[in-house]
Formats: sequence, structure tokens, C-alpha cells
Amino acid sequence: MNYPNSINDLIECYKRLPGIGEKTAERMALATLKFDEKTIHQFSQTLNNLNKIKRCKKCNNYTEDDLCVICKDDSREKDIICVVEEPKNINMFEKTKSFNGVYHVLNGLISPLDGINPSDINLNSLFERVENDNIKEIIIAVKPSIEGETTALYITKMLEEKDIIISKIAHGVPMGTDMDYIDSMTLEMALEDRKKISKNN
Amino acid sequence: MNYPNSINDLIECYKRLPGIGEKTAERMALATLKFDEKTIHQFSQTLNNLNKIKRCKKCNNYTEDDLCVICKDDSREKDIICVVEEPKNINMFEKTKSFNGVYHVLNGLISPLDGINPSDINLNSLFERVENDNIKEIIIAVKPSIEGETTALYITKMLEEKDIIISKIAHGVPMGTDMDYIDSMTLEMALEDRKKISKNN
Repeated sequence: MNYPNSINDLIECYKRLPGIGEKTAERMALATLKFDEKTIHQFSQTLNNLNKIKRCKKCNNYTEDDLCVICKDDSREKDIICVVEEPKNINMFEKTKSFNGVYHVLNGLISPLDGINPSDINLNSLFERVENDNIKEIIIAVKPSIEGETTALYITKMLEEKDIIISKIAHGVPMGTDMDYIDSMTLEMALEDRKKISKNN
Repeated sequence: MNYPNSINDLIECYKRLPGIGEKTAERMALATLKFDEKTIHQFSQTLNNLNKIKRCKKCNNYTEDDLCVICKDDSREKDIICVVEEPKNINMFEKTKSFNGVYHVLNGLISPLDGINPSDINLNSLFERVENDNIKEIIIAVKPSIEGETTALYITKMLEEKDIIISKIAHGVPMGTDMDYIDSMTLEMALEDRKKISKNN
């Protein structure tokens, strides 16, 4: 490109972001150039501040302190754990405002084919929490894939001796979707997990 | 959002970029978090380096020096000026590799309705170049809009006494487009600017 180096460098930076190609990166860099000096300084500072981010000692969520905002919150039910794959999944559940327990971030799923064994993901600390924190229920909320199912099975197996409820979020037809576009795997799951809605019987 | 402040701040920064909404900004911020420390530092530094960018003294293109790479290049034909609206347009022409002259960035177009008069855009320096640099041809390459046409007319009017060629890039049906989707204004221009291709006569 025929831009000065500082602009080309910024285009390269933006291109590292997911879903950003050459053209979008160029457009973003030229837009950045039009920010006022204060905004650019702030942006740069914000990137430097990222090194403050660590993982919550309890649930492995992103945090700047030892414990994340959710684990620190006294109003949350500390005996119900929702097990998720990545920190961003927490945000998705929080947006629903329908869960008041705490979370546990696995940071991956068991995948023997990729060489990811139970010890490679954050499972031991989950079992420790069950041991020490008087947990009543574990809700497994990982994606419905071979890896997700394997991980769910492993957790269930490891905790089968404990007196806790283990549940899994429902898989089925998403809201607002045309039935024509649903794959047969999903339909099979939706059928299997069908819910009785008649009053009699 | 339930992220630590450093992440929320970065999401806000990304949201300022064109075409980036809440969800994409979140995805980009979480991806940035996974960059190694060196890359993040580089990214931050790159933003700080943007203050090096100024405008070329000759053509008003982006540059880090007094003159831009194109104005500095001895192999370019300095007597043909392609007049564009914004610095990014230069890059578009450069990609075609079919123009070896120099450029002039207007930084806007005349638009009396928006209160943008000839003196508000970078026109005087264009007339100075015509006066001092022995210019042979001026190619007007601004977008075909009321503002673009007004600007083209103004330039033509101001230079009508000079012994130079003033031309305008062709407007018409773009390559690879289905004729069904062409608006009538474009078709009208395409008809008007038709090119003879028969050999006889």
C-alpha cells in the first residue's frame, strides 16, 4: 500500500483481529487517523492496560482482582455452578438475567483427537469446588458437539458418587428459526428432550 | 457487560471504528486479549505513532516526511495531476498500476448546501501547482455527484485560460455488473460518454 509506515503498521494490527480483512483494516486505520489525539492516546493506553487482566482464582473468569465480579457478589447463589467453555460464555448467560448462581470456566473441552485430556482443561478446580464449597447443583452449559458431550460425560462420571444434581442445558430448535433450516441432529435432540405440555396424565 | 474494566474500555475503543457494533467489538477485544504481550505492545505503540502522520506539502497526501512517497518518486510524471477527494482514493488508483502521474488531494468537495466553498477545500494549492510546476494535464477523479460535478466545473472554469488539458475519469457501467441493477443516472452517463468501436468512418 502507498501509505506511510505508521498507517501500514496499524492496518497490519487491525488485520490480526478476527473477521477483519485487508479492506476493512484499511478503512479502520483511516478512521482511527481521524480520531482526536486524546482518543488515540486512550486507545493505546487501553491496550497497555490489558496486562492487568488475569483469571479469577475461583471460577477462572477474566478479572483484574483475585476474584471476579460474580464470585465477589454476595447476592449470587454460590452453591449452583454453571460450567462453561470460555469466559465470553459467562457474558452471554448474564445477558439473559435468568441465572443467579456462579460460573466455572473450563478453558477448553476434552478432545482426545486433538490431544486435549481432562488434565489439560480447568476441571480439577471444579472438583475441588464441589469438595469444599458445598455445591448443590452443577449445570453443564457447553456446546453440543463430540467434545462438549465427552466433557459433560466425564464430569458426570467423576461426580457420580457425590450428592449433587448435575444437569445440562437443553439442546433443540432455537427461538424464531424456520423449521426448514434445522439440521437433523438438532431435530433429533429436540425430539429426545421433548417436554410434556398437556395437563392430563 | 460483566467484563473487567480494561476489557470494557477496549470494547468501547473498538466500537468507535466504522462498521463495528457491540458484538464485533466484544469479539475483537477478546481476540486482542489472546495476542501475546509483544503484539499488544506493538499495537499500542502503532497507535501512538499516528501522530507522525502529516500531509504532503505538495499534494496533501498522508506522509511522515515533508513530501509523500509519490511526490518524492523521480520516476513519476510530475506534469500530470490526478485530482482526488481523499488520500485513500490515491491508494485505489495506485492499485490499478495504470497511472504514473502525481496526485492532488482536495480534502473535500465544493458543496454550497453544506457551506463548503472553494476556499474551504485544498484548491488554491492546486492552482499554485498549475502556475509553478509546468503542468500539462489535470485529470479530475472525484465521485459523480452534485458536489463532484460542481468541483469539476469550478476547476475547469478557474483554469480555462491556461494552456493545459483538463479531463475527467469516465463514468458508466462498472465491470462485471448485471445491467439489471444499473440505475438510470449511470445509464444516462454511460450513453452520453459512449465510445466508438467500429473501424469504418
